[in-house]
Parts: sequence; structure tokens; C-alpha cells
Amino acid sequence: MDKDQSSEDKTSESRAQQNGQGSPTTNAGLKADLSVAEKLAGLRAVMSAEGIDAFVVDNADPHNNEYVAERWCCREWLSGMKGSNGMVVVTADWSGLWTDSRYYEMAEESLEGTEIELVKMSDVGVATVDEWLKAHLDEGQTVGFNGADTSVEQADSWSESFQQAGLNVRSELDLINSIWLDRPAAPKGELFLVDDKYAGKSIEAKVAELREQMKQQKLDAYLLGRTDESCWLLNFRGTDIEASPTPYCHTLVTKEDVLFFVDAEKLTAEAVAKFEAAGVTLKGYNEIESSLSDLDASARLLLIAQYAGFSLARAASHCVVIKGRAIVTDLKAVKNPVEVAHLKQALIDDGAAMVKFFTWLYRCMREGEPMSELKASRKLEAFRAEIPGFRHVSFDSIMGYGPDGALNHYCVDEESDKPVKNENIFLIDSGGNFLHGTTDTTRTIPMGEPTQLQKEDYTAVLSSMLELLMLEFAEGSNGAQLDGVCRQVLWKHGRHFKHGTGHGVGFGLEVHEGPQNISGRSTEKMMLGMITTIEPGCYRAGKHGVRIENMVHTVLGEDSEFGRFFKFENLTFCPINTDLIEKSMLPARQIDWLNNYHVEVLEKLSPLLNAEEREWLTHECRPV
Amino acid sequence: MDKDQSSEDKTSESRAQQNGQGSPTTNAGLKADLSVAEKLAGLRAVMSAEGIDAFVVDNADPHNNEYVAERWCCREWLSGMKGSNGMVVVTADWSGLWTDSRYYEMAEESLEGTEIELVKMSDVGVATVDEWLKAHLDEGQTVGFNGADTSVEQADSWSESFQQAGLNVRSELDLINSIWLDRPAAPKGELFLVDDKYAGKSIEAKVAELREQMKQQKLDAYLLGRTDESCWLLNFRGTDIEASPTPYCHTLVTKEDVLFFVDAEKLTAEAVAKFEAAGVTLKGYNEIESSLSDLDASARLLLIAQYAGFSLARAASHCVVIKGRAIVTDLKAVKNPVEVAHLKQALIDDGAAMVKFFTWLYRCMREGEPMSELKASRKLEAFRAEIPGFRHVSFDSIMGYGPDGALNHYCVDEESDKPVKNENIFLIDSGGNFLHGTTDTTRTIPMGEPTQLQKEDYTAVLSSMLELLMLEFAEGSNGAQLDGVCRQVLWKHGRHFKHGTGHGVGFGLEVHEGPQNISGRSTEKMMLGMITTIEPGCYRAGKHGVRIENMVHTVLGEDSEFGRFFKFENLTFCPINTDLIEKSMLPARQIDWLNNYHVEVLEKLSPLLNAEEREWLTHECRPV
Repeated sequence: MDKDQSSEDKTSESRAQQNGQGSPTTNAGLKADLSVAEKLAGLRAVMSAEGIDAFVVDNADPHNNEYVAERWCCREWLSGMKGSNGMVVVTADWSGLWTDSRYYEMAEESLEGTEIELVKMSDVGVATVDEWLKAHLDEGQTVGFNGADTSVEQADSWSESFQQAGLNVRSELDLINSIWLDRPAAPKGELFLVDDKYAGKSIEAKVAELREQMKQQKLDAYLLGRTDESCWLLNFRGTDIEASPTPYCHTLVTKEDVLFFVDAEKLTAEAVAKFEAAGVTLKGYNEIESSLSDLDASARLLLIAQYAGFSLARAASHCVVIKGRAIVTDLKAVKNPVEVAHLKQALIDDGAAMVKFFTWLYRCMREGEPMSELKASRKLEAFRAEIPGFRHVSFDSIMGYGPDGALNHYCVDEESDKPVKNENIFLIDSGGNFLHGTTDTTRTIPMGEPTQLQKEDYTAVLSSMLELLMLEFAEGSNGAQLDGVCRQVLWKHGRHFKHGTGHGVGFGLEVHEGPQNISGRSTEKMMLGMITTIEPGCYRAGKHGVRIENMVHTVLGEDSEFGRFFKFENLTFCPINTDLIEKSMLPARQIDWLNNYHVEVLEKLSPLLNAEEREWLTHECRPV
Repeated sequence: MDKDQSSEDKTSESRAQQNGQGSPTTNAGLKADLSVAEKLAGLRAVMSAEGIDAFVVDNADPHNNEYVAERWCCREWLSGMKGSNGMVVVTADWSGLWTDSRYYEMAEESLEGTEIELVKMSDVGVATVDEWLKAHLDEGQTVGFNGADTSVEQADSWSESFQQAGLNVRSELDLINSIWLDRPAAPKGELFLVDDKYAGKSIEAKVAELREQMKQQKLDAYLLGRTDESCWLLNFRGTDIEASPTPYCHTLVTKEDVLFFVDAEKLTAEAVAKFEAAGVTLKGYNEIESSLSDLDASARLLLIAQYAGFSLARAASHCVVIKGRAIVTDLKAVKNPVEVAHLKQALIDDGAAMVKFFTWLYRCMREGEPMSELKASRKLEAFRAEIPGFRHVSFDSIMGYGPDGALNHYCVDEESDKPVKNENIFLIDSGGNFLHGTTDTTRTIPMGEPTQLQKEDYTAVLSSMLELLMLEFAEGSNGAQLDGVCRQVLWKHGRHFKHGTGHGVGFGLEVHEGPQNISGRSTEKMMLGMITTIEPGCYRAGKHGVRIENMVHTVLGEDSEFGRFFKFENLTFCPINTDLIEKSMLPARQIDWLNNYHVEVLEKLSPLLNAEEREWLTHECRPV
């Protein structure tokens, strides 16, 4: 799954989805299913009562998580627009929704018939929310947003900017809450523990490692940022949100204590026992503010401004607040050997599931069975679900047949579902979250006789992917430099794609995990032990899309008098279709790599397949 | 001339040099030529009197300029270390000099016999000045630095960091001034005007363009940052500092006024008349603080935090200070067609000077005339000085024969000068500042029979340079991505270099000009009309160094359904030695480019050469 460069704030293109566990707190007697016009009228009424001239509504939770439970999908509730990136601004006589180019089409559909204007934020010269507000409000007027669900970074930036422009700022109001009568409660999914045999390190060892770093930075306390930091440190996962292993919780580590803030009903007796044995003190989710308030005034507290809610920064404002870099994010990005070994197996299991799916798909097509994107997506998920350790898909599968493959963030559902025929190419981007790792693989396959243009697009993308995958690069190189290496192959073929080239992947955690990224904006260095995707693409609107994605592990390459070199160890074993290759476009060294790769794919996946699947794979793995 | 990636704060590797105009203000009767020990003792005495526990001394002027007049070379005066990057920290019982890897050797030599410890700031895990002070000072102790010569950015960062660590900060003290008895005065070089036929735009037109941008950003005032912003806006150059066209001055643009702060003795009657005709109000250099103080409290003032001195920010603290992006830096980076046309001619003139120099050098060597780096450097400068419009060299030439070529920032002078023989390769990086443009060219040439290793190093560098020069890239690509494209060619040959790949160049202004850079750290986009260098290298300590550098102009490439593509127009016409080429390493398309290039070089330069030079060039331009 790729990460779009045009997404400024959010790290995923997937729709945030809520699990069924949040029971709605409907206020009986009041109308719950309001129209957009009624919701806007309600919001304007409370804005007017509070003296707010403009209110900003986002889909953001108190952790600024990538996947947000329905309770916090305020912008979606207000506007009907479901994409992962979007903010609504409402004034007394205007409302607009800012979103990036991935969602223009989706937003246009959602907003049709409402008063809400679409503001195309990826377009050149279009004002940001910040700029728009400063341009359209008069000095002395008041902008409001909900500080509890706004990151410190965003809130600080807005506050400074608005105040400089002579606007007042109110950040303590949850205005949507007062009009969203059937707003769902926070989810209550049960936590489960990750055994040390998967994690590779005990809670105690991780906490000791973290405290060592805190000592070096002279920190007395550290409020972990993104919730996956807590999952990694305390070896657990959650079930609050579909397609996300991270539950709503906070962790505050001090020199003496590890305070874990989570609702008691999410904890099994086993979890309580394990946390207590590891010296972790359990507290209620909502106790975080009072624990922050209890910190000594001289305490040096590390706070991750990108993720921590603004109200938590306020609760800790008496301390010496250091807005710094998330230590756990750096620690967990470098996978330990146990994690890497598990992930390698997970990607073999995952590759076998893909082969089972491809075999089934082509059989169905051969036999004339009606096929659709949604049917294919469900079958692929079913094959993945057979793998021991499967928890859930790692993101909503992108199943784009023909023109749908050109929609970078196409998400198939009952409404968007389209038939798959024997005429075009089919882009399949999917992955699983397993106890033994998180996977993310994209393949593009021909469903009929490919056109020359399709073959050339495909080969340019494949060559670009292999260029980076086969590269040895100097230690210290960063994501932007590696992005250039990958992209120039496509440029030389007159092609370009507008999303990032790759992203870090968590171990049994989020499919998008920092700090590293392969994109023009990423100056984060590629470190040994990191797990990253490489996924260039080529998209022709209305025609087809191509993307090919493997996961790689950064390992040591050659030593030289110029310093150390690093390289990528390929981790994904899943056949790369060769019928779509225009061989004249592929350098000999890439053809050799591909042929060797397919020998390995066949060897690793065959034991997991039945005779029919093995036969299909054997043909697919023939040398180019 | 390349820009080292390890330089965090300064943008040049060249030694800052003062012209002779600053008359020393020696305090007769006191000893002026102090030893480092005496200077440190004096500093500690004034530190103690002021209650300062640690004092930081830098070579920085009130503009954070790349080239600093001797008056502001406080660190150099205190420690004896001349490099462009270095800070000295002095406590009651310790002193240390922080510098980057370019200057380790130079610093070791300079500090020998003094108590000052060398702190190798490029090494992994070495504390920054900030970190060191926080680790070694106790709560309640006081750090001092001179705020007048420290940028707002640096001062803000230090102040916040030290205060968080419980340290006191004093930024109003110029302690060095009280012990540097023969400190030179500020230079008083005369300004000269740049005719509109060179600038391509009148002062009035530039001011109008700037005010349009200020209006869009709702700015009432803008204190220009780096002094080259003033030069560009008001079409003049200065003579305060050797190898720098920018004099000490400030410009404050408001909605109504253009206030130009410069010492009156620097202005000719012609300059006064031209500025007044263009509506520019002239003020004394030191009147800037009071003019800032006079701004209305509601004024929105843009201040460039990277360049403006901290004391100017204090003078303006009653306004709404916007620490933003330098508008003029963006305006002047995009060269107008008149500037580009002049620069093209300047690079032809410059290429001819290089050919005259090469012809002379090889003749001398043939005839057995003793040759040295310094002698060669002076001759090259003499050839450049013959070009009409020559003002000065654009930086101190790097003339590295053999092992000296491996020293990235080698600067030849009487002390470092070494003979040039018929045995090794010779790296020559030099340029001129002309009325019709600023040039920067590097060539590496064989002085004898090259070794296979030299040929392979050279060809890898050449191939890397041509890879980027010949690239078409998607609009929106940035310096880090382009850096990766260039560098990967060297990586594939198992080589690497540790400086940046290229930098922006001013028009008759500084040889290093932002915003763009080609380096792993630069996320600035490459824009149409920008002028940039491409200069990869390969260095083998104790053996030899290779660098090849051309200047390029960003122009439109092909349009495609994926968006616009940009490409580089080559601007440098100077033969690229082909005896050093290992042809089997160079792709055919690069060989073709090179052969076409040499046809063009011969055509453009021949009219400017005598028969001997033309003969030499004709041979040099033979096809590979």
C-alpha cells in the first residue's frame, strides 16, 4: 500500500473504520439521522452561542492515529466525506472541505447536494485552512477547534498563526459532541499479549533500553506518542479498530514507573498479571491528565508534538516540556533478529495465500464464473485468514481492475464494486496483520491479452522497483535520495507517479510506520534493520494502473575506503507476472535477478500449495 | 566549488577573508599580539566579572554572511583556526573548538600547543555545543554569547534549550570586543551600481514585484535577510569583502518606503542619485535598530531568522514578527532572460580563460618550468581578470595537485603551496565574479600518464555528473531526489563522496545562493530559471581527488499526461579531459553527449583564443 505524497497530515489512504464494539449513546427523543444541512445548522447554533466565528472539524482522535474509531470521525459525520484526509471549516455563512487530490472525486460525490464547497488543497495556489481563515476573518474574530483531538503540533501552529493575524483562538470546545446525539462511545476491544517468542524482547528489556536513552537525554518522563509505541514497549496489541492493531491507551514512562493508561474492561486477567509482573502500573484511560498534572514542576517531560493531544500538553504545562523525537519510534523501527525471522516466514505464508488466490481467480475466469473486485477481495482475505497467527487485514485491500487501478486509493465496497473481465490488467494491493508480522504486497496481473502500452507501463514500473531493490547505497543515505534513484527509471521512460515510493512497516503493528519513508520529503536516514516497502507505480486515468511492491530489510553491503554501504534484502516472495514484461526495456541484470527470484519463490512457496496451485506457480515462475 | 554536507551552519568552505580597508583601532600602550593563552585568560577575566560560566565564540557577522570581514572573525582571532565552520566554547577551566570533518586537520594544526581541545562534530555520538553545555554546566549557571552577531534562529534555539535545562542566558555581551584591542573596524568599501542592462529589471520593477508578494502575505514590512537580497533588489554590489560582492547593509521594505541602511562613505554621488530616483531612502548602517523600533506595534514584519541578528529581533519585538521565508531569495533564484543571456556569455568567456590557462600550464610543464599550485592559481586568476566585467574571483580557487585534490576544501596559500609535477592528476575548482554573471567550474586533468585507478575514479565521476545533467525529471522534484540520481552512479561503482552534489549560484552575486541545493538534505524544489552546479567527486586520501563541475539552467522538458517534465540546459563550456576516461565504463549516450559537447566547446571558445590555444583546444575536443 502506498502513501500519497500529497497527504500532508495523515499517513494512510485507507478509510478509517470502526469495529462494532462502540455502542451508540443515542439520546432518545431527539432526531439522530440529521441531514448535512441540519448538522450545519446545529453547529452554527452552538458556534453562535459560544461566540465562535469559524470552527474547524477534523477526523482526529486524541492520539492523532492513522485509523480513527467512529467516535472521532467528526468531519465524516458532519460532511459525509469518508477519506482519510479532510477538514471542514464552518463559518456563519460558508462551509468548505479541504482534501487532497486522492479524494477529489470521492469528496465531490459526498458533497453533492450540500452547501459544503470542495477546496482542492493539492492544487497550486489554493489557500490552506490556516491561510483561508486569516484571509476571511476580521481581526478580533474567533476561530475554534477541539484541542483534545488536535495534536500539539497542529494546535501550536494554528494558535501562533491565528494570534499573529489578530484572531482569537478557542481550543477547549468539543462543539460536535453537543450536536452529535447518537455519537458512538469509545471502542472497548480486549487487548491481547504478544509472546516474547514473537517480540524477541521482554517488556523489561525494552523498558531498560528506553530508560537508557531517556537518561542520555536527561529526561524524567516520556509520554509515548502514537499508540503503536505503547504496543511495542509493552508487548501487546489491541482490537479497538478494524485493520489496526493499536488500541486507545497512553503510556507514561518515568525514571521509576511505567504507567499504562487503558480502560480496565480491555484487560484480561492474564494481561493484568503480565503487566504487573513486568512492573507496569495500570491506570484508567482518562487518568492520564491527572498523572501529567502530578509530575514535578522540574520534571523534563518528552512529549511527541505530532501525536499528543493539545489538552495533554496543557495538563503538563507546569513541567519542562520537551517537544522532541519519539524514542520508541526509533527503537522499534530497527527490527530485532527474532522479528525479522518471523516476518520472513509471514511473507512466505502471505505469498502462498496470494498464489492460492491467483490460482482460484484464473480458474474462475477460465470457467466463466462471474467475478467482481469485491468477490476477489473477500476470497483473498479468506486465503490470508487461513494462515496461523492471522489477526486482520493490514489495510483495506485495493482491488483495482482496469480503470479502477488508476485510482491510487481505490477502496472496493458494495457501492464501488465492478466486474472483473478478461480484458484489462488488475492491480491488487493487500496485506495481513499476523502475530508473526505485518505484510504489504502489490502485484499487477493481466486478465486478458495485454496492450503494448500496458506492457511498457508495467516494465517501466518493474525496472524502477528493481533499480532500488538491487541498489547498494552509502550509509547515511535518506529516503528522498533513494526515492530519486527509483523514480529516475520511470522518468527516463517519460512516466511519473505522484505518491511516495515506500514506507516503513511495523512488526505485527501498523502497516505505515516511521520514522523512515522513501519519498521526496523524507530526510530520515535508512538504518540497518529497518523494514520498508518499495512500490513505484504508473497510472493512466480511465485506462489502467500498475504498481509492484515488495518489502525489504536494510542490511550491510560492502565496506569500502569511502565508508560502509547498505543494501536491501528482499523479503517478499510472490510471483511477479512476466507476461506483462516488454523484455527489451529491462536491463540484463534485472532479468537475471527476476529469474533467480522466481527460482526462490517456487522453492519457498511450493511446500505450502496443493498440486493445482503448484502447477500454476511453476508456470508463472518460468524464466524470462 | 562544492558545499560540504557536513557543514551545518555555514554555506561555504572557503576561508572568509577581509579586504584591507578596515583600519585597526589599536589601543596604543596595550599589547596587541596576544598568545592564545593570553587571549583565553583575558576572556575568562571578563567572563568572571560578568558572572558568565561559559561563553560561545563564533566567526559570525550581524548578517550571518558566508564571507565575514575580519572584524567579526572572533573565533579565528581567539583560537587561530581559520576554517569557515567552527565555534569555541570557553569555561573557567576548559575550552574546546567544534568543527566539521573538512577542518579536522586544519584545526589540529592551529590548536597545537594551545589548551583548546578539538571537538570533532561530524563524528557519530559527539555532543553538539548545545548538548555539551547542558551536560557540563549546573542548573543556575550562565551561558553567554554575542546576540548582535548571532542569528535569530541560533539564538532562539539556544535560549529555549538552555532555559529548559535550567541555565541562564546572557546574549547582550560582546566580550571579545573588550579584549580584542586591535580589532579592525568594519570595512568601508564603495558600492557600485549594476546597470539595468545586466540586471534585466529596474529597482522599481523589483520593488513592485516584492510588494505584490508582501501584499499576498499581508506583510507591512520586510527586513531583508542575507545581504545579497539587498544587492539584488537595489541593483548594486559592494566591495567590503574580497571574493564577495555583498557589503554590510540592511534593507527594510514597507508598504510606503524602501529604507536602505548603509554607511554614507560607501555611496558615490551617482549611487545616491540613482537610489533617490528609485524612491529609496538612505539611512546610516546603524540606524536600522531605531527604524525597527519605530515600526507600528500592529505592523506585521517579516524577518529572516537564519540571517537577521538577534538584537534586530529584539528591536522589533513590539511588532508582529513573522519568521518566514525570504521572499527576495525566491525571486532572485529564478533568473530573468537577460541574466541568463549574460551568464551564458560569462561562461563562454570563463571557459576561454580556462583554456588559456590549460594551454599555458601544459606549455610550462613541457618546457620544464617549475610549477606550483599557487603559481597556477595566480595565473588562472590573471586570465580571468582579462575578461571585461571581471570584479574578483568568486571564491578562493581550489588547486589540488595529487593528494591535495583529495582535501575537499584545500585552499592554496604561501604556506600550503606544493609543486605540480608530471606524475599525478590535478583538481582545479575556480570561478569569477563578473558584471555579467558568477561562474564556478571544476576540471580534473592528468599531468602525467594516469593510473587505471585514476581513470576509473574519473570516469565514475564523469558518468555521475552526466547522469544528472542529461536527466529529464518531473516538475516538483527536489534537490535530495536529484542528489540520489547523481550519486547512485558512483555507488554502483563502489564509490561515494561526502559533500553536496550542487548548489544554486547568484547572478553576479554569491557563488552559493539558495534556496535550492542538490544534496540529501535539500527538500527545496528545482524551479524553472534556477542556476545550479552539478559537481560530484571521488577522493582518495593521500593519493588524488577527482571532481567535475558544470553549471546548469533549469528549463522545460517534455509535457506528458503525467505532468510537466523539467531538464537542465548546460551552461559551462570548458573541455572535459578525455585522456582520463575509461571508455568501457561510460554508457554510449554519455559518450555521444560528450562528443557533441566538445564540438560546441570548440565552436564557442575558438573565437576567443590565439592560435596556440586553439590548437590545444582542438586536440582536447577530439571525439572519444
